[in-house]
Amino acid sequence: MALNPFSRPTKLMSFSSILLLLAMLMPLAKAQSPRETTIVLYLQDLASGPDATVVPITGIQGKPQSFTSFGTIFAVDDIITETPDKVSAQIGRAQGILVASSLSGSNVHVSMSLAFTSVEYNGSSLEIQGISRQFERYKEVSVVSGTGSFRYARGYATLETVFYDNKTSYSIIRCTVRLLPNSQ
Amino acid sequence: MALNPFSRPTKLMSFSSILLLLAMLMPLAKAQSPRETTIVLYLQDLASGPDATVVPITGIQGKPQSFTSFGTIFAVDDIITETPDKVSAQIGRAQGILVASSLSGSNVHVSMSLAFTSVEYNGSSLEIQGISRQFERYKEVSVVSGTGSFRYARGYATLETVFYDNKTSYSIIRCTVRLLPNSQ
Amino acid sequence: MALNPFSRPTKLMSFSSILLLLAMLMPLAKAQSPRETTIVLYLQDLASGPDATVVPITGIQGKPQSFTSFGTIFAVDDIITETPDKVSAQIGRAQGILVASSLSGSNVHVSMSLAFTSVEYNGSSLEIQGISRQFERYKEVSVVSGTGSFRYARGYATLETVFYDNKTSYSIIRCTVRLLPNSQ
Repeated sequence: MALNPFSRPTKLMSFSSILLLLAMLMPLAKAQSPRETTIVLYLQDLASGPDATVVPITGIQGKPQSFTSFGTIFAVDDIITETPDKVSAQIGRAQGILVASSLSGSNVHVSMSLAFTSVEYNGSSLEIQGISRQFERYKEVSVVSGTGSFRYARGYATLETVFYDNKTSYSIIRCTVRLLPNSQ
Repeated sequence: MALNPFSRPTKLMSFSSILLLLAMLMPLAKAQSPRETTIVLYLQDLASGPDATVVPITGIQGKPQSFTSFGTIFAVDDIITETPDKVSAQIGRAQGILVASSLSGSNVHVSMSLAFTSVEYNGSSLEIQGISRQFERYKEVSVVSGTGSFRYARGYATLETVFYDNKTSYSIIRCTVRLLPNSQ
Repeated sequence: MALNPFSRPTKLMSFSSILLLLAMLMPLAKAQSPRETTIVLYLQDLASGPDATVVPITGIQGKPQSFTSFGTIFAVDDIITETPDKVSAQIGRAQGILVASSLSGSNVHVSMSLAFTSVEYNGSSLEIQGISRQFERYKEVSVVSGTGSFRYARGYATLETVFYDNKTSYSIIRCTVRLLPNSQ
């Protein structure tokens, strides 16, 4: 006996149903190979004088305090700007501690927050941890998490000094942050 | 010629098979929009006297040591209790360092572990990093990871001072942790 | 009328199509129950003398500086080797800070980078945060993130002292890192 065509729609999966099912699955597939988002910002970093934004706190007794002297701890509170221009829009502060962490003088351990104050991200932060190989052009550190708009953030950031004035120890550092989309 | 009904089950996808397939896919779909879990706990924080649980270690030479003085580093070992009552069940300790990280005095960088000792989570920890905007009512910091029961944890925590005794510098801080389900 | 067999392939889902669809979905399913990868490495840790790799920086005024004295901060730059043998291949450095974080003397807060220099992982790092219960045999800390080959890393590491020479304060610490596969 022939198959009753009226019962078929509930019994068989049509090609269009398969397409629909696949379409439903696409977001899942996409989530497994997420596209990174990129944020570029600039740190205005002054390492000397009364207005310094990075200041040594302490170090190993009897040793000099510097970025190449093992054990020196610095507090940092750099202004974050939108462009390299130091008078461009201030969008936050990079706040935390840096520790000269190589006996050889090459690496600095970083634990800091990018605390945003811009309209878009006000009150949000990106949390950074990493080892800055200070004599390399591109230093890569980790984005370990975030708060507010950046909850659950994961990623990395490259740091590159794009301007340095030796006389005042003034640096402008380009910070390129790459984030995985939130998993929520 | 009519379709052989005996060959059909292996050739066609029945509606119930589709339901079964969809049911199999549901956990995947769910994993993409996870529900947060919430843990509420209380930090018993004493900032003065011989039994202080938060103590300044050092600071920038020639500057006062306080939460509003840039560069002051504190060690912290607050008791964690189940309720605001300081004699309620102790479930762990909040241990790590705090660094006054704003030139303006407003923000404190936090790197600490919530080290649990309760029966349920004994030996496990939640790892916290963030910038505490100390003059705001709700301070949000990140849960960057965890150990033991909290391996692979990701989330955030809000801190709110629910009691403060100015005379003894005694605070009770409600810490509301929100975690994504483990991705395992 | 009988179903036209020539139209069937585009209208019905065959059993082999279902198998194909399921095969396409398998990587998704697998990603939801990922297998951990394991890396074993050894820290060569010298706590005394002119070649010390872990050195106290500072502590609470008037208190001794040691791993059991609340508030003592150490800089660390341990050599990482491939085997316990101190003259085995050097594959990196464990660099960062340790803070004695218990009033009772039991726990040390760790924030450090495993900075690799081996051919395989040169320039990459694993970022560690955690509370080391120093009197327990296995100390578990978190892998909060990574850089280079270890971008987006998440996991944990157990630390076990496999050799200790009391006279020179020389330890060899086995560090077993377990990582979730990258979610990318």
